Amino acid sequence: VGPGDPELLTLRAIRAIEASDLIVHPGRDDRAGIAYEVVSELVRSTQRVRGMALAMMRGRDDGSVGYDRVAGALVEEARNGHRAVFLTEGDPMLYGTGSYVVERLKVLAADLAFEVIPGVSALGAVAARLGWPLARKDEILTVCPGTYHVDEIGAILDRGGPVCWFKSADVLPRLIDELAARGRLDDAVLVERVGHPAERVFFDLRDAAGQNLSYFSLVLVR
Amino acid sequence: VGPGDPELLTLRAIRAIEASDLIVHPGRDDRAGIAYEVVSELVRSTQRVRGMALAMMRGRDDGSVGYDRVAGALVEEARNGHRAVFLTEGDPMLYGTGSYVVERLKVLAADLAFEVIPGVSALGAVAARLGWPLARKDEILTVCPGTYHVDEIGAILDRGGPVCWFKSADVLPRLIDELAARGRLDDAVLVERVGHPAERVFFDLRDAAGQNLSYFSLVLVR
Repeated sequence: VGPGDPELLTLRAIRAIEASDLIVHPGRDDRAGIAYEVVSELVRSTQRVRGMALAMMRGRDDGSVGYDRVAGALVEEARNGHRAVFLTEGDPMLYGTGSYVVERLKVLAADLAFEVIPGVSALGAVAARLGWPLARKDEILTVCPGTYHVDEIGAILDRGGPVCWFKSADVLPRLIDELAARGRLDDAVLVERVGHPAERVFFDLRDAAGQNLSYFSLVLVR
Repeated sequence: VGPGDPELLTLRAIRAIEASDLIVHPGRDDRAGIAYEVVSELVRSTQRVRGMALAMMRGRDDGSVGYDRVAGALVEEARNGHRAVFLTEGDPMLYGTGSYVVERLKVLAADLAFEVIPGVSALGAVAARLGWPLARKDEILTVCPGTYHVDEIGAILDRGGPVCWFKSADVLPRLIDELAARGRLDDAVLVERVGHPAERVFFDLRDAAGQNLSYFSLVLVR
């Protein structure tokens, strides 16, 4: 469903959602959730909607029960002759839940037709919002998950190319320290919930540090 | 315009194109070019279309004349009270021409309203096509331009996370050697012109090495 703005849905995503009998999404309630809210205006009363909460914790096995349930629901629907979609925020394969569901469908649904529909990533949306290139010419772009690799932040910055941190709230104090130590605080911007009505942009990361930031906070360093 | 499939246009891109008086694109002819072909079915006969070829060569200053001309055409149109769009393939800010045009608009058009519309990147489209995650949990993703850094390929692979090479044709022989030296040929796939009717997928990079590959050939290594 892309980063949160319904206008950033692709035609293919819209058509798949409109053609589905069952819409599964990672919300705690059937009619609430970040992904569901992006598409809610497309949903007709004849379509069934099911929120299936997924664990979002650290560790190797987190969420697996949730992913099994999602894949099972999609397969059951298809075996009954219906169409089903599973919604994911951003791009489904970039730190998204999509890749875990696909992994299970490859096993459970090898005889069924299924497709992953790529979406606009938060990364591309932040770059567009700021007018900042993600990468040009010979630049190597590094994309990191902010809840890991805290001790490697300095080394990652020293690689030299642009760097993006997804889910950056946890890592922010250390990132500020490492940028400041290199005199590079002006090279970074934090965007929270890009494209959403609640979007916030912090051109000084230190202003963001005291805030209660969303899980969907992305830092881009150039 | 995304990676090439008209269905991967976003609603916002479609609306911007439909509302424009002038459509500028990086084709050599007004009615031909990779970006133009993605949207050609949307274009009405009352809209003006202008192909403005951009240099695609190595070096710091390549293409600058072309980018100046594109930005100048957009600004002229806006100052005449009209709307104009510039099309770019893939995501405009990821190795795209969009970032160069934006750089010029920030100077030339500071008093005008302009917007960058993010798109589905070839990176996300390839991952979706293959059902391969780009990055999960603690993985760090590295994105490289294939026409540079030939001597660093081994070191980039040894970083350990997933790696993507854009424009990989030039670098392919060396990439195959470095993957083979690590016993990792099975970890890589090459996708040429993802989502386009002429798309080709090579699950063995050695099969691609003898081919006349498009500029739009992406390798994903996991």
